[in-house]
Amino acid sequence: VSAPVADGRRVVSDLRELARLTGGPGGAGRVAWSDGWRRARQWLTEQLAELSCEVTTDPAGNLLADLPGEAGGFVMVGSHIDSVPAGGWLDGVLGVLSALEVLRAWAEASEPPPVGLRLVDWADEEGARYGRSLFGSSTATGLLDPMDYALLVDVDGVSFAEAASECGVDLATASGARRSLDGAHAYLELHIEQGPVLERTGRRVAVVTGTAGVRRRTLHLTGEAAHAGAAPMDMRRDPVLAAGRIVGAAADLAVERGGTATFGSIAAHPGIVTIVAERCDVVIDLRHPQIDALSGLVDEVDTAVANICNDAGVRAEFEPQWSIDPIPFDPRLIDLARAACTHAGLEPAVMASGALHDAAPVAELVPTVMLFTPSRRGISHSPTEDTDEADLIAGVKVLGALASSTLEWAARQQ
Amino acid sequence: VSAPVADGRRVVSDLRELARLTGGPGGAGRVAWSDGWRRARQWLTEQLAELSCEVTTDPAGNLLADLPGEAGGFVMVGSHIDSVPAGGWLDGVLGVLSALEVLRAWAEASEPPPVGLRLVDWADEEGARYGRSLFGSSTATGLLDPMDYALLVDVDGVSFAEAASECGVDLATASGARRSLDGAHAYLELHIEQGPVLERTGRRVAVVTGTAGVRRRTLHLTGEAAHAGAAPMDMRRDPVLAAGRIVGAAADLAVERGGTATFGSIAAHPGIVTIVAERCDVVIDLRHPQIDALSGLVDEVDTAVANICNDAGVRAEFEPQWSIDPIPFDPRLIDLARAACTHAGLEPAVMASGALHDAAPVAELVPTVMLFTPSRRGISHSPTEDTDEADLIAGVKVLGALASSTLEWAARQQ
Repeated sequence: VSAPVADGRRVVSDLRELARLTGGPGGAGRVAWSDGWRRARQWLTEQLAELSCEVTTDPAGNLLADLPGEAGGFVMVGSHIDSVPAGGWLDGVLGVLSALEVLRAWAEASEPPPVGLRLVDWADEEGARYGRSLFGSSTATGLLDPMDYALLVDVDGVSFAEAASECGVDLATASGARRSLDGAHAYLELHIEQGPVLERTGRRVAVVTGTAGVRRRTLHLTGEAAHAGAAPMDMRRDPVLAAGRIVGAAADLAVERGGTATFGSIAAHPGIVTIVAERCDVVIDLRHPQIDALSGLVDEVDTAVANICNDAGVRAEFEPQWSIDPIPFDPRLIDLARAACTHAGLEPAVMASGALHDAAPVAELVPTVMLFTPSRRGISHSPTEDTDEADLIAGVKVLGALASSTLEWAARQQ
Repeated sequence: VSAPVADGRRVVSDLRELARLTGGPGGAGRVAWSDGWRRARQWLTEQLAELSCEVTTDPAGNLLADLPGEAGGFVMVGSHIDSVPAGGWLDGVLGVLSALEVLRAWAEASEPPPVGLRLVDWADEEGARYGRSLFGSSTATGLLDPMDYALLVDVDGVSFAEAASECGVDLATASGARRSLDGAHAYLELHIEQGPVLERTGRRVAVVTGTAGVRRRTLHLTGEAAHAGAAPMDMRRDPVLAAGRIVGAAADLAVERGGTATFGSIAAHPGIVTIVAERCDVVIDLRHPQIDALSGLVDEVDTAVANICNDAGVRAEFEPQWSIDPIPFDPRLIDLARAACTHAGLEPAVMASGALHDAAPVAELVPTVMLFTPSRRGISHSPTEDTDEADLIAGVKVLGALASSTLEWAARQQ
């Protein structure tokens, strides 16, 4: 088989056209289940119609497009076309339109692919409207019961069940999407990094080894209110001081372990400048790509919290907010991805993803790997999200090469 | 002169009666310029009418009651009868009703006091309605221009000028209250501590050596927003982390210097748990009773802020909120106060006040000293504010003895 070459210039042109159709200077407007999202999918379906492939939508609203191969089963390539409100022109859609290009290249080739090739556009990756991400991919992998989403309401009081129903998705039968993975040999996803690492390395592409695990908890600290002037330091039980020491200690521990610690929200109560606060709440988000290191980091932070609060006379209570284990990608596909970079004349960065992607739930069932292209200044979820065209073209080229080698690898597995 | 004895039991009885008249289980209701405040002053005026003393209100609304002495001039004894909303039964009013008792004791005595004795009830110490404290005492000492208060409005849109006018105070002429200090030999004030120190020492009374200086500033920290997962620790500019380290460092420096550092308000923006914050604002209130130590503490905290922010890549900007220098009380009156304790059979604690009092501005012009009685669990500005009756009675006894020795000292000064 002489593998066809995916042409990144066509992808850039498609990205710009879709940005015109469903975005503008105010940013991308493709929130899942919205008119803009349906318009984007309509446009995608029109592009796919020009190829000789079958387009379907599964019971969870995932859009699938299949190009038959010489042997059975298929390699999936994709991402998500939905965006956050006022989003960027690349987040998600880069992977979908790159998959379109891979299909297009194979459709134009003289021979069919070694096994089938399936484009997938997962439904509602962002969770922008209902606050829960990865709906389509998690439903397809059976990791969530779609009925759990039925009663969620958006800011206008419209339920998830209603919004999905308007797009032809019946939550009662959505779990039938599990069949979308039947016959899948592998899943490949190209995405922007959404962070600053690649830009700093100067590499055009990264092979992603997996997604980091997350332990997010609100720490409620309770001390005792006191007069800012009349209470000496050694008689205070100051929860803001305890929070300050905890933030510093948790950051130091995260650095030592090679993970991250984020404190996006902190507040003192009653919040009066002449009163030592009675309570302080801080959200601590700990991440690490390795499960043992993540558990170790959580234990170390908990010990630091206990010691600091003991010294400060402050009571600490953790309220869990969200948790997911690290998900490693497939080592064989990681090797193929490295080789695809070399084949494209590129030296890749190799990194874990701190952000989640559809690839994370899919990787639980199907051999998976991801590629990243750089994000200028690490910015995403914003109209200013951007990547150099040369980097986008390089990313598509590597994805095309990786798809070809993965198709061959899948055929050998039969 | 055989000095009369001030009877604390009468003061406790007066305090309870005034609490019934202007308070209840919900706490004291004597906010300055309110009906409750005027009712309290009406009651006070009735008590003073039973003594042979002249009651006047000065142009700033300070209530004065004079008992003539053998020689000219007078010793002032007092505090403030106004309270915060839902306040306690002792804050301020203890000093006023103790002064009433001192006057009563001298009025009942066989001889007039060596110099005049003046009770003073300063107007609007708390600043509860308009957010500025010490109106009456600061106006009397000429430290503020009362016209600066004219346009302040309360939550209902009523101006300070209107509210004061309803109580007979014309701001345009209020500065005439400076004459209220003409002829003052000394100022004595008994107050509850509003902190936990005395209770811990087990002493019934403290001699107060002065009020602490305050440097209160909002620290605006600006970093860079970033994805909680995708931004590695060494590429972050996290203002919440900088704030945490600063809070810990400032508290350590305050402890080393024997001062205080309070962080009553802290907030991260945009406050989203999956995003490294872009900004963090924290109010830092530094206090110390000695000016050199206070300046040193401010310098050390500023150096720590600069170093921490430099390491963190965060920009720091201080916005001044409030500042006052430490005010030492009169060393001769401090000695008299210690002797009065000994005379009353009590070993006093000796301490600076972290909180401000009317005595602070007055001390700039008139030899001044304060006495504290303990606050149970350090609580004030609350209906649960309390002091053991035995401690109140001891405090009044010492105030009476101190008034007698100060009257004699003042007569010797002539």
